Amino acid sequence: MKRYLMTFSYDGTNYCGYQKQPKVVTVQNEIEKVLKKINNKKLVKINASGRTDSGVHANNQKAHFDLDIDITEEKLKMGLNSLLPDDIYVKKIEEVPADFDARKNAKAKEYIYKINLGTYTPTERNIVYQYNKDLDIVAIERALKYFEGEHNFKSFTPTAETRDNYVRTILQTNLLRDIKDLDKVTIVILGTGFLKYMVRNIVGTLIEIGEGKRKPEDIIDILNKTDRISAGITAPPEGLYLNDVYY
Amino acid sequence: MKRYLMTFSYDGTNYCGYQKQPKVVTVQNEIEKVLKKINNKKLVKINASGRTDSGVHANNQKAHFDLDIDITEEKLKMGLNSLLPDDIYVKKIEEVPADFDARKNAKAKEYIYKINLGTYTPTERNIVYQYNKDLDIVAIERALKYFEGEHNFKSFTPTAETRDNYVRTILQTNLLRDIKDLDKVTIVILGTGFLKYMVRNIVGTLIEIGEGKRKPEDIIDILNKTDRISAGITAPPEGLYLNDVYY
Repeated sequence: MKRYLMTFSYDGTNYCGYQKQPKVVTVQNEIEKVLKKINNKKLVKINASGRTDSGVHANNQKAHFDLDIDITEEKLKMGLNSLLPDDIYVKKIEEVPADFDARKNAKAKEYIYKINLGTYTPTERNIVYQYNKDLDIVAIERALKYFEGEHNFKSFTPTAETRDNYVRTILQTNLLRDIKDLDKVTIVILGTGFLKYMVRNIVGTLIEIGEGKRKPEDIIDILNKTDRISAGITAPPEGLYLNDVYY
Repeated sequence: MKRYLMTFSYDGTNYCGYQKQPKVVTVQNEIEKVLKKINNKKLVKINASGRTDSGVHANNQKAHFDLDIDITEEKLKMGLNSLLPDDIYVKKIEEVPADFDARKNAKAKEYIYKINLGTYTPTERNIVYQYNKDLDIVAIERALKYFEGEHNFKSFTPTAETRDNYVRTILQTNLLRDIKDLDKVTIVILGTGFLKYMVRNIVGTLIEIGEGKRKPEDIIDILNKTDRISAGITAPPEGLYLNDVYY
């Protein structure tokens, strides 16, 4: 038996999220269906770094799985890509130690969120949030910095999400603008771990700051309140990408 | 009666091209269906600058049409966008003289063709040609320049396309690379008019030059031969955008 780490990208538009669920189409379902074929009809469970919600994309999602059959990494990658639908792509397969865990061993994850402030763009409607109005980007950039460090993020996850611990560490944040097209804004958030909807709730709150409805320094207060209603709306899924997972 | 010029964008992925056809979904069908609603169930024929093929996109397509009803440009735009599917977007409506013709008055058209030389990107599979290998970009850039000027483009349109005149003028060409991501290449072609499949056949031939199968100066010969088999393959539709129409 060998354990493999798989790096893969997907367009989340047509999936009910990453995680396996009965009766709906998910990314995990599709990959496990294909791996089962490759593995002589024996089920292969894949274990990802974490789930992504319905409509959310991934540039470099990671998952580990075990295989008994004798196959090279390159052939496994080719086999997967030839059988997977064209909205999921395996970028890399590498053998890892038998105790490697794609979720538990993840040291950090990077999410990016893409916003279009300019004219509605039909070709990008499922892969960039079409905000289509101006925002105060300087205010958003200032607000973003308040998220860096160790904080209790209870205000940024649904109230129904009961967890033992809401403390997470944001290692770095960035706001990028396309120098050739200033209407294209990307928010980058690198952290040790994330709660459900956390990035989308952070972005939704940042947008309200960019609209002038809140001030950048309000973030301190919102974090301290540890109450979902103190934060802003949940930004839509199409702008969000799991960009990378670090081990 | 007033005549309007409409500027609109669309994602061509789910359409059998721009032009109206029975029994299939086309961009023109969708817009005329909506205009008929707005025009109290009376048919409104729209006249575009030209057609685009199945799977080809538009950033700024132009069409004129006549309306009897009394409505402001702004309300007409809002009405259209509220009723159109989300892969078609009306950017602008402006009143024009009664003899304005979106096709006949077009002085020039700009097409762009997007190619990804890097890793397959699922989120962009329908909006950028996923070539996913390296190409000799310097050779392509040199070859592109041979298309500038007035030429007979018979070699770059299907043999079955019989026309009185295959001479067209390419006013300007450009090859752009994303400075933050050199794998993203865009070919820009501005011309007074284009034959069917002309841009895709030019791009297909340029790709063969980028692969080293042909030399940049072969373009002179291919143009002179006025025979489709002398040129290269037809590049796939998903990389192509009608970028602008000039009057």
